[in-house]
Amino acid sequence: MGRVICAGLGPGDPELMSVRADRLVRSARHVAYFRKKGRPGQARKIVDKLLAPDVTEYAMEYPVTTELPFDSPAYIEQLARFYDDWAKRLVQLAQHQDIVVLCEGDPFFYGSFMHLYIRLQGRVEVVPGIPGMVGCWWSTGQPMTWGDDVLTVLMGTLPEDDLVRHMQSADAIAIMKTGRNLPRVRRALARAGRLEQAWLVQHGTMPQQQISRLVNTPDSVCPYFAIVLVHGQGRRPEVAE
Amino acid sequence: MGRVICAGLGPGDPELMSVRADRLVRSARHVAYFRKKGRPGQARKIVDKLLAPDVTEYAMEYPVTTELPFDSPAYIEQLARFYDDWAKRLVQLAQHQDIVVLCEGDPFFYGSFMHLYIRLQGRVEVVPGIPGMVGCWWSTGQPMTWGDDVLTVLMGTLPEDDLVRHMQSADAIAIMKTGRNLPRVRRALARAGRLEQAWLVQHGTMPQQQISRLVNTPDSVCPYFAIVLVHGQGRRPEVAE
Repeated sequence: MGRVICAGLGPGDPELMSVRADRLVRSARHVAYFRKKGRPGQARKIVDKLLAPDVTEYAMEYPVTTELPFDSPAYIEQLARFYDDWAKRLVQLAQHQDIVVLCEGDPFFYGSFMHLYIRLQGRVEVVPGIPGMVGCWWSTGQPMTWGDDVLTVLMGTLPEDDLVRHMQSADAIAIMKTGRNLPRVRRALARAGRLEQAWLVQHGTMPQQQISRLVNTPDSVCPYFAIVLVHGQGRRPEVAE
Repeated sequence: MGRVICAGLGPGDPELMSVRADRLVRSARHVAYFRKKGRPGQARKIVDKLLAPDVTEYAMEYPVTTELPFDSPAYIEQLARFYDDWAKRLVQLAQHQDIVVLCEGDPFFYGSFMHLYIRLQGRVEVVPGIPGMVGCWWSTGQPMTWGDDVLTVLMGTLPEDDLVRHMQSADAIAIMKTGRNLPRVRRALARAGRLEQAWLVQHGTMPQQQISRLVNTPDSVCPYFAIVLVHGQGRRPEVAE
């Protein structure tokens, strides 16, 4: 009897994977991972040089939606069945051997794997990982939170007024799911008086990482996984002259 | 010429350290870490079985304050000089060999190391780690954030009214630096209507880990590093019957 094990892979650099996840990935005989149709998938890319040559791979491809809106009941229903089907299939596959599900970041932090997790209660193990936003603030080379700073994590999908309200009351801010939402995120930061302090981090910790001040960066090219950060400036004992 | 390298050690389980941090710790000839006088120090405990037998250790002991209040200008001045002195000393030590500074969690996320980091600009490398709160939500066995949940991270040291205001507007909440602040954190959660959903996690991911509903847990025994969590309940496609 095998197990379903979800390995959190961290922000992108394979060396930032945990010792436990690294061992699981290298010794895996069967791996599964989410991806969009026709794309390699972020999780699969992270482990590219670690997988055994004879590993069996299961790509869990999100259902394609050309005609259905992203948040329509019909699409959500289709997504629910997609998770139901893969949860069953993973249990079947695990009857004979372990199967390792690969997930970027931390699986319990806005991860797609959680939809499988709640369907596999008691039959699944999870290995935590460094969240993507932690890798992104590392990439900026600036500490994120000090003293009693309040950190708020926001999704770029939220309505603009909600974004503004949360941005105004936080000291440090991380905004995920930016991509096509970047113009709204930018407007909200400007209204909250935080745009000048905001950084855009793309592919944090990876060789192609790009860090720029948001105010100097056009909306045009922004991958979905780019993260916007405003660092906290909380109390600290002053540095000697 | 050596380097000063800060290794983020993650939440407590040594297997949750990154591959890079694990390698640095095991091969270190010189390590430094913060601790309170007379205490082993959390970072030092995490690496107990990993350090080479002939490693040289430097315990950076916080200045003792029996007569000075924690937030008095005199104590803050004393702390500033403490960081100044250790920054100088680490640079001196690194003239001949690498020195690895051990830090629990992620160094850029409310870490003491940041006070050395800003004093060592350009002469220091940092390895990120899994933050303590990520280890704690892993310990609860429940996903932390879904869909467009807003996560807010709060320090238990904040005034009660501030805590209430932030708790009311967040979906998921993590509260650090609880300890003797736990009674205030509990009152704030009750006023915000979130007490019933709150968990107290002590020593997350470690052998002595303890997880309990806060409403059933007395204020009496709560280490400073215990974390209070309220999980997000954001949108998700429903599970089939």
